[in-house]
Order: sequence, then C-alpha cells, then structure tokens
Amino acid sequence: MDEHGRKEKVITITYAITSSSGEIGKIAEEIALEQTVEVPAEVIGDDRVREEIVGKVVSIHRTDSETEERCIVEIAYPVIVSNYEIPQFLNLLYGNISFKRGIRIVDMHFPPEFIRTFRGPKVGLEGMRRLIGVFDRPLVSTALKPMGRSPEELAEMCYQFALGGIDIIKDDHSLVDFPFCRFEERVTECMKAIERAEAKTGKRALYFPNITGRFERIMNNVEYAMEKNVGGLLVSPFVMGLDCVRHIAERDGIDKPVMSHPSLTGIFFADSETGIAPGLLLGKLFRLIGIDCSVFPNFGGRFSFDRPTCLSIAGALREEFYHMRSAFPTPAGGMRLENIAEILHFYGKDIILLIGGALYLKSRDLQEGARYFCERVSAACRQ
Amino acid sequence: MDEHGRKEKVITITYAITSSSGEIGKIAEEIALEQTVEVPAEVIGDDRVREEIVGKVVSIHRTDSETEERCIVEIAYPVIVSNYEIPQFLNLLYGNISFKRGIRIVDMHFPPEFIRTFRGPKVGLEGMRRLIGVFDRPLVSTALKPMGRSPEELAEMCYQFALGGIDIIKDDHSLVDFPFCRFEERVTECMKAIERAEAKTGKRALYFPNITGRFERIMNNVEYAMEKNVGGLLVSPFVMGLDCVRHIAERDGIDKPVMSHPSLTGIFFADSETGIAPGLLLGKLFRLIGIDCSVFPNFGGRFSFDRPTCLSIAGALREEFYHMRSAFPTPAGGMRLENIAEILHFYGKDIILLIGGALYLKSRDLQEGARYFCERVSAACRQ
Repeated sequence: MDEHGRKEKVITITYAITSSSGEIGKIAEEIALEQTVEVPAEVIGDDRVREEIVGKVVSIHRTDSETEERCIVEIAYPVIVSNYEIPQFLNLLYGNISFKRGIRIVDMHFPPEFIRTFRGPKVGLEGMRRLIGVFDRPLVSTALKPMGRSPEELAEMCYQFALGGIDIIKDDHSLVDFPFCRFEERVTECMKAIERAEAKTGKRALYFPNITGRFERIMNNVEYAMEKNVGGLLVSPFVMGLDCVRHIAERDGIDKPVMSHPSLTGIFFADSETGIAPGLLLGKLFRLIGIDCSVFPNFGGRFSFDRPTCLSIAGALREEFYHMRSAFPTPAGGMRLENIAEILHFYGKDIILLIGGALYLKSRDLQEGARYFCERVSAACRQ
Repeated sequence: MDEHGRKEKVITITYAITSSSGEIGKIAEEIALEQTVEVPAEVIGDDRVREEIVGKVVSIHRTDSETEERCIVEIAYPVIVSNYEIPQFLNLLYGNISFKRGIRIVDMHFPPEFIRTFRGPKVGLEGMRRLIGVFDRPLVSTALKPMGRSPEELAEMCYQFALGGIDIIKDDHSLVDFPFCRFEERVTECMKAIERAEAKTGKRALYFPNITGRFERIMNNVEYAMEKNVGGLLVSPFVMGLDCVRHIAERDGIDKPVMSHPSLTGIFFADSETGIAPGLLLGKLFRLIGIDCSVFPNFGGRFSFDRPTCLSIAGALREEFYHMRSAFPTPAGGMRLENIAEILHFYGKDIILLIGGALYLKSRDLQEGARYFCERVSAACRQ
C-alpha cells in the first residue's frame, strides 16, 4: 500500500449535505465508503483496508436552515486512493455520488504529494503577459464565428481583429474539422492573417485554434498547430476528457498557453444543493490539469452565474496554490462593451476579457469594433 | 458546406423547456442559435449559414402545469453541424445550454447518414449470449472489490466467483493501476483464476478489467488486456472521454464486449427540469459509442432512479436502432438477492444482473454466495 502511508497525507473533500431525514452523519459515512471501497462497512473484512483506503469523516458542522438539515462535512481520504491521477481522482471526487441529490462538493484540499505530480499551467498568467508584452491592463480577446464560414472568411475576420488590436483571437468552441472548414486549412489561413497583421502593426496577436475533435485526430491537431506556431490551444475538457487535456498541457514541447471552454460543465452547477462548486471545477481542477486561461460565463450575461461565483472561480485560478502558476480568469458569455469598466472594477486587471457576439454586433467593420473594444479597456484602466 | 445538403438530413433534438417568463418560443430560438452559430440572429449576415447551419424550431407543444409554462420543443439541426462525430455532437447536444436551467433533453433522432458513421456495439446482446453460451436467462455478474486488496486476493475472489457460476466478473470501476494493485498484475492473476476455474467446471467466466486510467496508459491497458484474452473491457466514458471509448470500442482487433460504468453521469439526471434524460445518455448515446452493456442504478437500490427511468434506459439499449446491435441493460447499485424475481419480471430476461455488495454480504464463502445468486436467477426464470 502507500509506502509512506502517514496519516497526514490525505485529500480532504468538503461537502455541503442537505437532508430532510435527520441522518447527515450516516450520509457522510456512506459517502466515505461509496467513493472508495463501494461495499458496506461490515464487508471490508480487513482492518488495513479500513485504515488505509476508506475515507474518514473528520468534521460535521451544522448550518441548518429553518426547513432543512444542512451540514458542511469534511472527509479525509488517504491520498493513495486518488492514485495521484485525474481519472481516479474524478471517481473519488464525484463518481458514484453524482447519482445522489443533496450532496455538493464545496472544497477540496490537496497535500503537496498529490500536487507535485502535476505540472499545472506551463505558461500561466505572467507568462501570457510576457508573450503578449502587456502588463498594465486586461488582455483583450474575441472568437472567430459563426460556424459555416470558410477558412478564408474566418482568416479575414482574424486579420481585421488583429489589426484592431485584439490580443487573443480564438476559434469558437464548436469549430471542429468540418468538410467546409478544415482544421488544417483554418489554422494555415488564420496564421497567415496573424502574420500579415503583424507586418503592418508590429504587434503579434495570438491565435488559439480549437483542437477538440475526433479522438484519432486530436494529437495530429496539436502537432499541426505547433508546427504552424499558433498562439495557443483551445480545448473543451469535458468533451475531450480531462486527462487527455492534462496530457496535452503537460507534454514536453507544448509551450503554448492552453485555454479551456466550459462546454457541458454547466450541469454541475444547475442545482445549488448538488454538483460541484464552479470555483473548484472551472478554477482549481482546470488549473491542476494545466489550463492557462479558463473561460466561464460572466455575471450579467446570457448565463446564470452570480458575482460571488465568478469571484470564486477567479480566485481559484489566481491565488497561490503550491508551485502552480496562476491562470487567467476569462469571463465571457454575452458581455457588453458598455460594461467593461464595471467588469474591471470587479475582477481587477488580471483577466482576459472575451467578447464575441457584442463585437460582431457593434460594427460590420470588425477592425473598427476591435479598436473600440481596446479603447474601452484602456479608458477603463485609466479610471 | 454539406454537399448533399438536403433539408431532410437533420438531427432532431427534443427539449422539455420550463419557464415562468412566458417566452418559450424565444427560448427555443435562442437554443437553435446558441448550439450552432453562437451569435445573435442579426449578426449571421449570410443566408447560406442561416439556412445550412442554424437549428430550426419545428414544433412547440404546450404541456403547462398549473404553475409553470412547460413545452416540448423540437429543433432540427442540419446533420453537418454534428460533423458526424461524438465531440462536436456533444457540443451541439448540450455544450453551452448546460449552463441554462429549465432545459432538459428528452429525445434525439438521428438520420441514417449520421448513424452510418458509427459501428455501435461490436459484440452486442446476442453476441455476448453466444460467447457465454447462455440464451434462456439473464446473465449473472459481480464486481471485484474492495479497493485496497492485492491482485492475488482479488484473483482468489475471481476464482471463487467463477467456480460459483458467475458469468461476468468485473473490476470495481475505481480499481486502477495502483502501486498496491498493478493493472497488469491484476489482469494476469485474474485470468489465471478464470482458467483454473474453467479447468474445473468446463465453463469460462468472462473477466472485465477496468481499463480507465491515466491517458498515457489507456491504450497499453487495452493491448495488455487483449493479449491476456480477457472476457471484456470495463470503461467509464465520462471519466475517460466519450470519444476515447468510442475509439477503443470501434477499433479493429478489439472483439471483446465493452461494459460502461456511469461514473460522474448522475449529475445530468439530478434535476427533472434540466439535464439529459437517462435513457438518452446511458442508453442511446452509450450504445452509439459502442457499449455492449451499460451499467446503471436499478430502482429500489441505493440510488434514485425510478422504474420508468430504468425501463427507458433498457429500451434505448435493446430496441431496434438502425444497424446497431442491441446492448445489455445492466442494472446495479444496491440490488438485493431477494428481489431477483421481481427484477426479471420487470425487465425480462435480456439483462445482466450485476450484484456486488449484497453478494459479499451474503456469505464469507464467495463461491457459495455466487452459487446461491445463480440458483435464485434460475429459480426466478422457472416461475
């Protein structure tokens, strides 16, 4: 078993448990078994397994409401149960209990032994600032869309955005290797556009192609993107598999920032008593697998995150976390150009502002729209 | 664009939309844009894109309750939007709208052009029956556990279960490549146990090792398992990535049945007004990616599926679906040996009965417990 098996080497997962049965202690004990040995306690039949594998309920703190019993529960799991890997950690974190209502993961604490096995963001917030050469304002980003356009059309948009001063130009997350818009052609054309714009402005925008696609193609996409010297890679961790993304982000030779799109993840946040807190999933976990910038729905946009949720994601990406580099919070999703000052005031300057739709709405002249966007950001920073 | 772009080539997704705003028509139009072009309608600026990419709301059927507006909405998407692949289909199905409450996917209809690009289950229900040589009763299955045991200990359990007559012996879904229980050692020892038992009984049980693990190891796990001539493979699609599983299941040379564990998926079913209907996810979609037997929580166990939900999963796995072979419904999760007759009466004989914990509880003598389990099944079939 764990050869260093000292007791302090535990992963502590904190749950908010809601129940009307009055049996939260029992529910906590069941979680500790369910997520590890998956048998009733009386079946374990080996004290060593009980001691070294099963989670231990270390605290139960009542926060009852008027109508329901609610507790914050900490369970400590021997770190070996995670096998120091993402797939088994996902099983441990939420595998079987995803089928139970009234259990929400609200925190997770890792020992250094666990964190040491992950590289985390390879470029990180400071590295991205150095890449772009911008230190005193948020980075400015937009998306190439809509699906249905040809590589040449998207590359022309990319050119206009780059001329207008956008720092990061990403593919829409659903731009895959379509017959009418091949991945390799899109990357080639967009990189030509980036270089043409650079020749004119002296500033090089970063283009992030979406490498998500058929399993058989992903590594080819990565290699092709690296050959073409793209600015970074766009991934959708829950579509591709989190450990596939971790593998790409950690891989030697991949020195580009990796941006995550939260496709499919919203369901984890649909019910406030169930699921996983957004800061843990889109913040801590994505940073752990090596994400340099994590896209999430901003407050006040067309999705439903509130301000505290957005702050907790931003915090989990930026705060000190062992050796892990900070990652860029990247609020998006229906942001308006008029709100930039408010958004900066809220998050501070260490964010990437990702505005897609509103930029297309602003003007048919994308270069002009981009310039307006950049000016608004500069103006907001001067306030 | 889609060169055959005829209008009938659409994927129709059916949503149950709940709203208190009285604007379901507007919500439906927003979904059709959100899941495809991701821009407001006025920005598309190209009639061809509007026609060939954007989803079309084809019906809105009101089923209001007394307090809320509720509708069943069908949206038809040009099949090309899926790119005939799983990752982009996941974006289309639920990518961005996973962040919206009150939208539940309740059906999905595929045209033959889409289905043709997938092999589906390679062994299937009938093939598994032929492999095992059992045609007139449910298959009988159990799991090796708990985590913490050595390969030798698990192999001894495997031996006892095989002697007792179990058809399929699977790893627990969280048995990965632990230092105290290496994947290769476990597979080697368990296959020796299978062969020793076969030499004694003349019947060969199928052992399904769990191939889920670090991304870098998955293909090695598959190859090692194939070399050792295992009975089948256990996968966790949402932990590994669905398209990784599809790739393995479709791969030439992999002629073994693939069993899915639903780890992490429960969150899609936590709220009856949001998420994806279980029959679609654990049934139709898993069958599409090539799952031969789909494990799901049975009614009355320690999880929360009700009878209609279980029937709809079983239906989606077994019913005629283009060229796709039928797959085995595999109810599990706290089933009791006393309920077998009731379970058979409910599902019919074309299921795999997966009983883990209750079998370990039944007797310290696992062979005796297994024999009792098999006898209960035979007795229930004679009723």
